[in-house]
Amino acid sequence: MGCPRIKEILARITIGAIELLRDIYYGAALYPELWKWETVKKDISEMKKIGMNTARIGEFAWSTFEPKKDQFDFTILEDTLKELEKQNMYAILCTPTMTPPIWLTAGETNMMHQTNEGLTFIHGARQHVCTNNPFFRDRARVYAEKLAEFLKDYDNVIAVQLDNEFKAHVGPCYCNNCKNEWHKWLEKEYQDIQLLNEKWTTKIWSQEYTSFDQVVIPKKTAFLHNLSLEEAYTRFTHDLINDFAKDQADTIRQILPIPITHNSSFAFDLDNVGLFENLDFVSFDTYVDTPTAFVMNSSYWPNIKKDVAAHILMETSTSYPGHIKEYRKIHPKGFVEAESFITYASEGKGFLFWPFRQQKGGIEQPHGSVVSSWGEPTIGYQASQNIGELLSKTKDLLLKSRAIQPEIAVIYSDRAKSFLNKENGGALDYRKALTDYFDYFVKNGQRASLYNEKSSFDQLKLLCTPFMHHISDSFRNRALEFVEKGGIWLIGPMSGDRTEEHQWYTDTGLGKLGRILNVEGMMQFPSMETEIKAKFEGQTIFLRNMVTAVSGAAGAKVLGKIDSDEFGEGLAFLFEKQVGKGKIVFIGADLVDAEEQSLNHLVIQKYVEELSLKHEAVQTGASVLDFERRDEDGTIQHWLVNFSGEESNFVLEKEMVDIISGQPFGKGKHTASPYKYYVFID
Amino acid sequence: MGCPRIKEILARITIGAIELLRDIYYGAALYPELWKWETVKKDISEMKKIGMNTARIGEFAWSTFEPKKDQFDFTILEDTLKELEKQNMYAILCTPTMTPPIWLTAGETNMMHQTNEGLTFIHGARQHVCTNNPFFRDRARVYAEKLAEFLKDYDNVIAVQLDNEFKAHVGPCYCNNCKNEWHKWLEKEYQDIQLLNEKWTTKIWSQEYTSFDQVVIPKKTAFLHNLSLEEAYTRFTHDLINDFAKDQADTIRQILPIPITHNSSFAFDLDNVGLFENLDFVSFDTYVDTPTAFVMNSSYWPNIKKDVAAHILMETSTSYPGHIKEYRKIHPKGFVEAESFITYASEGKGFLFWPFRQQKGGIEQPHGSVVSSWGEPTIGYQASQNIGELLSKTKDLLLKSRAIQPEIAVIYSDRAKSFLNKENGGALDYRKALTDYFDYFVKNGQRASLYNEKSSFDQLKLLCTPFMHHISDSFRNRALEFVEKGGIWLIGPMSGDRTEEHQWYTDTGLGKLGRILNVEGMMQFPSMETEIKAKFEGQTIFLRNMVTAVSGAAGAKVLGKIDSDEFGEGLAFLFEKQVGKGKIVFIGADLVDAEEQSLNHLVIQKYVEELSLKHEAVQTGASVLDFERRDEDGTIQHWLVNFSGEESNFVLEKEMVDIISGQPFGKGKHTASPYKYYVFID
Amino acid sequence: MGCPRIKEILARITIGAIELLRDIYYGAALYPELWKWETVKKDISEMKKIGMNTARIGEFAWSTFEPKKDQFDFTILEDTLKELEKQNMYAILCTPTMTPPIWLTAGETNMMHQTNEGLTFIHGARQHVCTNNPFFRDRARVYAEKLAEFLKDYDNVIAVQLDNEFKAHVGPCYCNNCKNEWHKWLEKEYQDIQLLNEKWTTKIWSQEYTSFDQVVIPKKTAFLHNLSLEEAYTRFTHDLINDFAKDQADTIRQILPIPITHNSSFAFDLDNVGLFENLDFVSFDTYVDTPTAFVMNSSYWPNIKKDVAAHILMETSTSYPGHIKEYRKIHPKGFVEAESFITYASEGKGFLFWPFRQQKGGIEQPHGSVVSSWGEPTIGYQASQNIGELLSKTKDLLLKSRAIQPEIAVIYSDRAKSFLNKENGGALDYRKALTDYFDYFVKNGQRASLYNEKSSFDQLKLLCTPFMHHISDSFRNRALEFVEKGGIWLIGPMSGDRTEEHQWYTDTGLGKLGRILNVEGMMQFPSMETEIKAKFEGQTIFLRNMVTAVSGAAGAKVLGKIDSDEFGEGLAFLFEKQVGKGKIVFIGADLVDAEEQSLNHLVIQKYVEELSLKHEAVQTGASVLDFERRDEDGTIQHWLVNFSGEESNFVLEKEMVDIISGQPFGKGKHTASPYKYYVFID
Repeated sequence: MGCPRIKEILARITIGAIELLRDIYYGAALYPELWKWETVKKDISEMKKIGMNTARIGEFAWSTFEPKKDQFDFTILEDTLKELEKQNMYAILCTPTMTPPIWLTAGETNMMHQTNEGLTFIHGARQHVCTNNPFFRDRARVYAEKLAEFLKDYDNVIAVQLDNEFKAHVGPCYCNNCKNEWHKWLEKEYQDIQLLNEKWTTKIWSQEYTSFDQVVIPKKTAFLHNLSLEEAYTRFTHDLINDFAKDQADTIRQILPIPITHNSSFAFDLDNVGLFENLDFVSFDTYVDTPTAFVMNSSYWPNIKKDVAAHILMETSTSYPGHIKEYRKIHPKGFVEAESFITYASEGKGFLFWPFRQQKGGIEQPHGSVVSSWGEPTIGYQASQNIGELLSKTKDLLLKSRAIQPEIAVIYSDRAKSFLNKENGGALDYRKALTDYFDYFVKNGQRASLYNEKSSFDQLKLLCTPFMHHISDSFRNRALEFVEKGGIWLIGPMSGDRTEEHQWYTDTGLGKLGRILNVEGMMQFPSMETEIKAKFEGQTIFLRNMVTAVSGAAGAKVLGKIDSDEFGEGLAFLFEKQVGKGKIVFIGADLVDAEEQSLNHLVIQKYVEELSLKHEAVQTGASVLDFERRDEDGTIQHWLVNFSGEESNFVLEKEMVDIISGQPFGKGKHTASPYKYYVFID
Repeated sequence: MGCPRIKEILARITIGAIELLRDIYYGAALYPELWKWETVKKDISEMKKIGMNTARIGEFAWSTFEPKKDQFDFTILEDTLKELEKQNMYAILCTPTMTPPIWLTAGETNMMHQTNEGLTFIHGARQHVCTNNPFFRDRARVYAEKLAEFLKDYDNVIAVQLDNEFKAHVGPCYCNNCKNEWHKWLEKEYQDIQLLNEKWTTKIWSQEYTSFDQVVIPKKTAFLHNLSLEEAYTRFTHDLINDFAKDQADTIRQILPIPITHNSSFAFDLDNVGLFENLDFVSFDTYVDTPTAFVMNSSYWPNIKKDVAAHILMETSTSYPGHIKEYRKIHPKGFVEAESFITYASEGKGFLFWPFRQQKGGIEQPHGSVVSSWGEPTIGYQASQNIGELLSKTKDLLLKSRAIQPEIAVIYSDRAKSFLNKENGGALDYRKALTDYFDYFVKNGQRASLYNEKSSFDQLKLLCTPFMHHISDSFRNRALEFVEKGGIWLIGPMSGDRTEEHQWYTDTGLGKLGRILNVEGMMQFPSMETEIKAKFEGQTIFLRNMVTAVSGAAGAKVLGKIDSDEFGEGLAFLFEKQVGKGKIVFIGADLVDAEEQSLNHLVIQKYVEELSLKHEAVQTGASVLDFERRDEDGTIQHWLVNFSGEESNFVLEKEMVDIISGQPFGKGKHTASPYKYYVFID
Repeated sequence: MGCPRIKEILARITIGAIELLRDIYYGAALYPELWKWETVKKDISEMKKIGMNTARIGEFAWSTFEPKKDQFDFTILEDTLKELEKQNMYAILCTPTMTPPIWLTAGETNMMHQTNEGLTFIHGARQHVCTNNPFFRDRARVYAEKLAEFLKDYDNVIAVQLDNEFKAHVGPCYCNNCKNEWHKWLEKEYQDIQLLNEKWTTKIWSQEYTSFDQVVIPKKTAFLHNLSLEEAYTRFTHDLINDFAKDQADTIRQILPIPITHNSSFAFDLDNVGLFENLDFVSFDTYVDTPTAFVMNSSYWPNIKKDVAAHILMETSTSYPGHIKEYRKIHPKGFVEAESFITYASEGKGFLFWPFRQQKGGIEQPHGSVVSSWGEPTIGYQASQNIGELLSKTKDLLLKSRAIQPEIAVIYSDRAKSFLNKENGGALDYRKALTDYFDYFVKNGQRASLYNEKSSFDQLKLLCTPFMHHISDSFRNRALEFVEKGGIWLIGPMSGDRTEEHQWYTDTGLGKLGRILNVEGMMQFPSMETEIKAKFEGQTIFLRNMVTAVSGAAGAKVLGKIDSDEFGEGLAFLFEKQVGKGKIVFIGADLVDAEEQSLNHLVIQKYVEELSLKHEAVQTGASVLDFERRDEDGTIQHWLVNFSGEESNFVLEKEMVDIISGQPFGKGKHTASPYKYYVFID
């Protein structure tokens, strides 16, 4: 069965390579288990009509497909997949382990997630079960096997998504089973309890342990737990959810060679790199409402999985997200289309809405969709249609070209996030800090990637590591190699000053990095409300948050000094050091002006200019971003978008034709209306 | 025993009719169990002196009157009632079930109220016991019997108040006994578990149940429970507290034919209509501090019990409420007198302060009273005296007349409250929304009732149903009948868009109502911070909160359209449809001006004018309210009050005499000082 | 062993007298258990270098010194004390009971602290154990004995500090053992359960108890517990922690005659007077960041222990305090030096930083120190050095002189704190209220003491008791005696209006005090947002918080009347009454101006002027404080400091020499830069 084209495409899938996702996908989440068959059919046909080719199915359907233990019934799924096939459409199938049915958990309090205050969750919402529970894992495995078996017959299923938004609603679990797993994990991680004691400095406050099974799970207690312990419990939690994903993926792989993914998000506490190491490609969900926050997604997820830039935006809203306790803003006109444009331009192979038809009951009733519960177009319908049209004009271009990576990257690291959020000083938040930092790039039409700690720096010229308390040996070595070859590495603010166990270094203040920089007399102190004046290239600025400054750094050129007779007069907070053909630039504080507006971009700008990183063919102005792609012949495509609510300009160095409108655009300056996009062929 | 007048009055009591409360009552709560007998006597005589005729007694006195299980001792009560009788005064007796004594609960954790986080309450405050507990119910029954037996001998007891402020301190209980009762209740409500599954759409998130005893009590879990389940648990909680009240009332009735009431409040989560169906008349407590909030009480409670407008304001403050964790504002001079004036004018048969003598210990030490703990006049004493004088001048008028109902009513529904507060979008609160809506009437001297969903529309010309997500079939049918006869029904904002299980309709967006309005292409979307411009009668306005708009409504006259090229350009959010002799007006959003000030009154005003609802004899200005009463001869009394802190005006169309001052007021405009009141006879 | 000078000094120690602390101490907390021996040695030598002579050791070192039950190993301590001795330095040794090791608590949930919501704490932070647990007490005793035995050999240990910051992280414990202790305590306190019932007025809300073992521990329940019960539970908690301290002190005393102290703080909930009755001298920690908050410490702690003004500031920050969840402000330049100057001038015998070397791991990583974790000077190093220099110039002066007490005192009472914080009306906080009150003195260069309820009034001319709800019989009698002799006693705002059980008086509103003042017609009412105008000495002011006003007070001179036709027109809120040679002044409200700025100082100023309390030799301006000391010959030293960030002035009545700079200062006006200090000899 199935259409020839799909078969041909599927035949080319090879696990672990770009071939995974051969077509360009556009679609939405479909809930055939919730609606009458006529409604489902109508929805599929409506999807087709507006240019969609993909339905995502099954992530909450456990009680429908396995209504009683070991009794599986995939009839509804069968009908749906066949209908999709009839319409020449794809499906992504999900495992429903986020929502275990009542027959699994009834009377099983041991299986339930437990909070750090000892609250044991119950049936009825999502993620109420501890995913480390062995009985739960067994049942998840059985389900995965049955689903994989079933899917063998369906060629139009392009991928399996495991579970749904790991850790969307819950933090670490603190149940007794987790406590046992924790002790095993610790033993594997530290081998010797004395080593753990030393690494965590448990002599502080007499916290010392004499055996692994004494180590507490950090449930709520008086004041706060040892920070190294908290970091370890986060790593433990990350590892075990990744282990669950691997367990599920391996189960499916034994039966069916199908690409496996998971829909992650910036919003959840996960080790994304570790997670996707075990999966075949990356997916993510996003419900942000600013251009910068969206561009961060498209700058981050393509880089999470080594060598696999292809990914799917698995969930976003056609218009507004929300639930009964949170009515959210509606997206401005053109915003969603711009999101899809950027997604596809950035190696996003799929762009899916959640959901196609509005949920008629439950928590997510006030969440945007393509059609309403009563089957009529919603406020987001027009955007959905526009994206269908956009794709019809650009699909061939996309299939034959690849995104060109920017030469600038900022590290967005799950470990750095954990470090900054645990030691937040009551004021800091990693995602917010990085968003404020990245905002400059988006608002100034300067393309930059968000890399993780394992990303390769091969294509880079400028590497930025803001708010990265711990710089590991391996990261530092790779970054130094990059610098030796001519790269520029901006370190800071608040970077490099903590060991892997989230402690201070006991030499130089920065450990080996400090020795490389020849740092002498390093001091660190907070500047939360105080006014610490400083100079950077003749300009008066102010220093914020934790300030790191040194009395000397032999061989370095000082670029910024404290200029305050109150605090640290004359200490250097900003200096560059030539290393090989490149430079390390150490930035010891958040820079702001007298009105507390960020000036961190001043340093970035300096080196962007020094490296001449501006494009030549296309000069972009405020908020106009140029996503470049190279086709098989080497021709450059400029996917240009004004991702803002204001008119903006761009300059073409020569006449080019916009593929979308079919219009030629002359050499010189042009005006782009809000959220307007173009594809120029160089 | 007892004075002849009281006997005569009591002889005329007939359960379930206005005859219930034949006199006009004025008084305060008295705690003879807390004070020496000389103090009690002194207080009674002081009450008498300032014109009070009623004492409320016993609502916390369980440990005094039943110090040990089955050992009753009503000596203090006997003395007090006799002293009151001697002074020709009335009493209202209360059951003390809000404060169970230690002998009842010691060691009985099963009897205690449990929160949704699993916290089990303990002895020592109020409402710490689960009122659904069978052992507790037994003891409450025994107490009620003994009290009723005792009261047989006292003719001056005009009513029994059950318990005190149900649910003042607690939400639903989540104890094991409640869980069992919940399962029984569900079975009675839904009969078939599959029906429950369908109605609640439990297939969402695999929540399906296979038997009633699996259905969770919605204790705290990850994220949020199914909304239909939450609504059901609220109905269950309402039903069971009402069942407790009925149980108590029936127990007393078997022994003594005495009117039974309860002191409810806007502030608590109850089904008031259901509660008072089983009781004989309505009482309420209020501690608000704005004119609008107070007028809402007097506009609402007279309509709660079918055919029984007579009610008692059981508790309010002479000056300021408060407790150790909340010092509240003091009422402005004249405010409290105006409250009593409005209460009596609106069929309030009683107006009682809490308490007469300030509590000398405990939580409520900083709560206003008539005399202080040391027996001297408080800051509220003068107002108490003034009310005594007011009554002496108006009691005969009140006894021989009845309030005339306004021709405008706004629905204030406990179900609508539950719906809006559960789906609050993080921003909405039913009581606040209704108060903002009702504010217009009070500030503009336009009298309006607050009706419940079961109120009769016979006397109405204008019916408003704002923030009423679910409009039931029966309500809609009655409202349509009202419209057919010439009434105008303003639907919205945020009304008619949800089923009884708090879900979306799957046809028209408004179900049957949508078909009646011929609604086509209905969309709903949030406007939380976005700027959605619109036009209403040529005026530019903005739409807020959830916006409902349609592409068409055949046969309707569009009054307001969206005027925004961003969102829903040209959609109608406001339209009227002629039905029979009347009109339905659909209002699809909260209307505001550019400064976010409410403009909802624009629509109300339009129809108030169309219906010519302004009075002729008395034209009221800002904040001057005219409570009309009709005496036995058909003469109209104008109870006029400037319920504000500013001077205001009113216009008399002819000369009339003010009964209070005895002064004639000429035709024309007059100035009323803050909180000033008059009684004009037409 | 040991240097002769130390031996000589120690020989002069006599428990319970000033001889306790014979030298002047300057130092910091040292953690030899956390660092390599070379680092410890380096730190000791660095301390010495900057002028320090004292190290505080051991308060968290239980797991190091008793790694297994009954296995003690003080090797590290031995080495450290010897090294200190070698450097001619002192040590303060601490018991580590704040941080019990895992071998003590593993598996012992009964030993753990339990919160009022039933959360049982676990190992890993601090104060996770219930200090009332008998097994814990046993082990604490064993440790104290062993430590005392060990210390016998070390002459340079000047004191033992018990535990660390009692109740820094926890409130009262609610474990089962505490419940039993509570019942015993109640029986001892009230003897008869009926007496308890009467005193607490438990008839309110049927709270009556029939035996002591029924009395609840006030765990969280619906609404709030009886206020008298809450006050009793606070006293119980205070008594039992003081009993623990006494138990530990007595244990040590049996073995070693060494002065014993504890480091308390304004921030914790303790009965400090009761605590230090059992100890030998007072110590305190402070991490405040305003001059007023610091001066309050130095005005309070010298008066806590009868006849022992000598005390130690045991912990403060060189630059900024903080922990991972709270980055704090850095102190301005000169602030910390001024703190040390004031401490020493006010009979502080010791000034110690926490810590010397920054904590390399754990929660307190971002807390200022003298040297960083990597051993280099921090931003606070310079201040540490400056203090060393200051001491070298002033130590001899200090050793031969004593502080002269100010003639003004404000009562800062732990009971008053409990009363105000429990009945806070949602708005008040005792420490904040007192700080606002005391601010006037500091900002105006007017020296005043903070006394406790047991302080002697011998040296006073002006006594202020603001926010002191309960004035006990004994306090009142002593204050009256003071007044009879010519003193002026300012009572209020919010003082004298509650019994010892936190209830209203039932006579006069003020009980006996009211009778002394001949108060008639007293009213009390809140003024939270209302505008209550009043007059004080012709000036229009406004009354805030709880207002107490009277219609008469025979024999008193009315100084302030309410001037509002809304509330209490003409009532007196402020009046003075001649008693013997002195005056009682009753102040019935917080006084503010139209901008809500405090005007309480107007009354203080009036009596400061009346009493001519300004100095003659030195006239201080804004924020310039003159700490006077008298040497053995009767010569007066003026320790003058501009404790503010602004330049200020002072006037010398004659030429004097500044000991610090060695410069003569002429008669007349001089300018002091921010935080500048001088020592002038009169």
